[in-house]
Amino acid sequence: MLPGMTTRGYHHGDLRRALLDAAVQAIEESGPAALSLRDLARRAGVSHAAPAHHFGDKAGLLTALAVEGYDRLADELGGAGDDLLEVGVAYVRFAVDHRAHFEVMFQPDLYRGDDAEVRAARDRAHAVLRGGLAALPAAAPDRDALAAWSIVHGFATLWLAGALPPEAGRDPEQTARAVIRRLFE
Amino acid sequence: MLPGMTTRGYHHGDLRRALLDAAVQAIEESGPAALSLRDLARRAGVSHAAPAHHFGDKAGLLTALAVEGYDRLADELGGAGDDLLEVGVAYVRFAVDHRAHFEVMFQPDLYRGDDAEVRAARDRAHAVLRGGLAALPAAAPDRDALAAWSIVHGFATLWLAGALPPEAGRDPEQTARAVIRRLFE
Repeated sequence: MLPGMTTRGYHHGDLRRALLDAAVQAIEESGPAALSLRDLARRAGVSHAAPAHHFGDKAGLLTALAVEGYDRLADELGGAGDDLLEVGVAYVRFAVDHRAHFEVMFQPDLYRGDDAEVRAARDRAHAVLRGGLAALPAAAPDRDALAAWSIVHGFATLWLAGALPPEAGRDPEQTARAVIRRLFE
Repeated sequence: MLPGMTTRGYHHGDLRRALLDAAVQAIEESGPAALSLRDLARRAGVSHAAPAHHFGDKAGLLTALAVEGYDRLADELGGAGDDLLEVGVAYVRFAVDHRAHFEVMFQPDLYRGDDAEVRAARDRAHAVLRGGLAALPAAAPDRDALAAWSIVHGFATLWLAGALPPEAGRDPEQTARAVIRRLFE
C-alpha cells in the first residue's frame, strides 16, 4: 500500500470527500436524523472506523457539511451581484441544488453551530445576503433583510417539501423570481 | 378491569390522545425521523402493541398528527379574521406553539399525504390562508398568496431553527408583524 493511501485506494483527502458525498446521498434519501456513521462507512465502502477518524462523530460530520454549505451559499449569492432579486433567486437555486446541505444548515441542533469555521462561513453568507439589500431604499434595513430572507427561505422550504399547489408551476427559479418581485411593488 | 379500559386505566380515546401527546413530546426533543412506535409505547407507559393498534405504523401516527395540525392551523387562521397581517401572525404563532405538528406537516415524505382526512384538513387551512388575501387589491392572486405564505413560513422556520440574528428580537409575533408589513408597503 502506498503512503497516504487507504485500503480502498483513496488518498486521505479523497476519502474525506467520498464520505461527505455519501452523507449527502444518505441525507437526500432519509434526512440527517437517520444518518449513522456506520451506515456511512458501508455506503462509501470503507472501514467502519473511517468516518470517526475523519469527523469524530456524527455532529462533526454534519458540522463539516454545514461549513461546506454556508461556504457554497456565500459563493453563489456573491456570484449573483448586488441585485437583490437575483440574490434571492440564487438562494432558492442553492436550496434546490443542494438540498442535503440546506437541510443540515438549518437544523443547528444536529451540529456544532458555534464551531469557528461554521460561524465564519455563516457570517460570510449573511453578509452577502445583506449586501444584496444595500441597493434598496430602506427605511428599516434589519427588518427588510429579515423579510427578504424569510420570503426566499420560506419559498425554498415549501418547494423542497413538495407542499406547493400545482399553480406554483414546475420551475422553482421562475416562480421564485415572481414571488420575490412582490417585495418591490 | 372495566370494559373499555386498558391495563393502565385509559379509556380507548384517552389512550389515543396520550399516545399523540407522547409523540409530540418525543418530536419536540428529537424530531420526527427518530421516533419509533416502541419508544412511544415506553413513553406513554403502555404495551408496545398499543401504538400499532391505534395507528397501524409510524406513518399512520404521523398522518394523525398532520391531520390534527392542519385542523388546528385552519382554526387558528380562521380565528384571525380577514386581516392578512393577523392571519400571517397567527400562522407564525401556530408554528411556535405547535412546533412538533408544524415540523411533521411539512415533511410529507413521513406520512400519508394523500390520506382523505389530511387532504380535507390541508385544503381547509389553504382556503383560510387565501381568504385572508381576498381583502387585498391583487393583480396576481396566486403569486400574492404564494408570497404571503412564503414570508410567514420562512420566518417561522428560521425562528424555530434558531437561525435568526439577535436583532430579530425575542418576541416572534412582534417581529413577524413587522416583517409581514413589508408586503404592504
